[in-house]
Amino acid sequence: MKKAVILSSGGLDSTTCMAIAKSLDYELFSLSFDYGQRLRCELDCARKVARFFGASKHLIISVNMRDIGGSALTDAIDVPKGRDTETMASAIPVTYVPARNTIFLSFALAWAEVIGAGDIFIGVNSLDYSGYPDCRPEYIIAFEKMANLSTKAAVEGCLTFAIRTPLMHLIKAEIIRKGLELGVDYSITHSCYDPDESGRACGECDSCKLRLRAFKQAGLSDPVHYVKRASDD
Amino acid sequence: MKKAVILSSGGLDSTTCMAIAKSLDYELFSLSFDYGQRLRCELDCARKVARFFGASKHLIISVNMRDIGGSALTDAIDVPKGRDTETMASAIPVTYVPARNTIFLSFALAWAEVIGAGDIFIGVNSLDYSGYPDCRPEYIIAFEKMANLSTKAAVEGCLTFAIRTPLMHLIKAEIIRKGLELGVDYSITHSCYDPDESGRACGECDSCKLRLRAFKQAGLSDPVHYVKRASDD
Repeated sequence: MKKAVILSSGGLDSTTCMAIAKSLDYELFSLSFDYGQRLRCELDCARKVARFFGASKHLIISVNMRDIGGSALTDAIDVPKGRDTETMASAIPVTYVPARNTIFLSFALAWAEVIGAGDIFIGVNSLDYSGYPDCRPEYIIAFEKMANLSTKAAVEGCLTFAIRTPLMHLIKAEIIRKGLELGVDYSITHSCYDPDESGRACGECDSCKLRLRAFKQAGLSDPVHYVKRASDD
Repeated sequence: MKKAVILSSGGLDSTTCMAIAKSLDYELFSLSFDYGQRLRCELDCARKVARFFGASKHLIISVNMRDIGGSALTDAIDVPKGRDTETMASAIPVTYVPARNTIFLSFALAWAEVIGAGDIFIGVNSLDYSGYPDCRPEYIIAFEKMANLSTKAAVEGCLTFAIRTPLMHLIKAEIIRKGLELGVDYSITHSCYDPDESGRACGECDSCKLRLRAFKQAGLSDPVHYVKRASDD
């Protein structure tokens, strides 16, 4: 059985990505990060998702990105609310975490090398996205090239690393439809950047807005609980 | 004043690298990692080195690479001893840490973006080295390319990231001579993979052997304390 490392945030995209890897008969190794993110419920969702798909292992790596700073997701910077999707796409937002996907993929690469997995799945998406540079295909291609030059397993010809991005060219509504086809239970996932104390999604941050719009486009209702569902969604 | 992030292990190479960055009038931001390495004295040396060069900040990031495993530097695997330099060069050794430089450079990139530093110094070396794939020029070039695609600052044209490797084509004896010219005090550095409890270098691991041979070639005596200095050095 081929092994794959799946980067999992417990969100909609990475969960769908895990469903796709499972449907391709990979043995799943789920990888999450405790990076000082304000949204602690992310890790609970990631645990539930790994169990849901029967991952062989779910590893949570602690990395202190708060010391580096520079993001509304780790610092005390306000998460923007109520923006329309056009505004979102016009600039890279304050929720950008410097080099986050590069750091996450680097750890995924290390783990993949140790367990002998050639494939690393990441749920990045270049269409319905928040404008992050490390979600674009040219970035992924550059990372993959670097990965195959950096590792003993690749240099010695034992493994070739591939960064799999099955969601890259899907809009979020297509991602949801794909996930439902594959049996994903989206009620155990979590996307909000600024949930309340009980873990309910705010309904107004970029991530909630994109998610709500996608469920609406797919003709479905999002099963997670919201404090408020914005009227334009 | 231009800012630079310097990856510092408290060893001979990264310390010389910091001296070079200082001689080029960079404001220094020293970055070290607590990655569960067996050699804890590394971090003490890195602290001393940052102080020695008057770094504006010395950041130590904790990353748990023990959970990933796969290396004699983090796991309970014996560090090889008494190998000659030809044997060292013939294969990638068990002291290889999967994707280590990729992980370290990724954090350096994140920090560089936050503080507005375009230059990242890393003391890798393709000549007198232990056979690690992530020390080669082709790897560094691939990382740099990826870095400039992954970050907001680069994509928005505010910064271009350069991975500076001033030691790449120097043999270790030349590195030492260069460092001494620049006033490096090598007595505060540390290279051994397997020091004793009091922090004395073993004199027999690959890293000690390369270091001792380099001091000998430079016509100098290494100022650090050894348990034993191998007779062929």
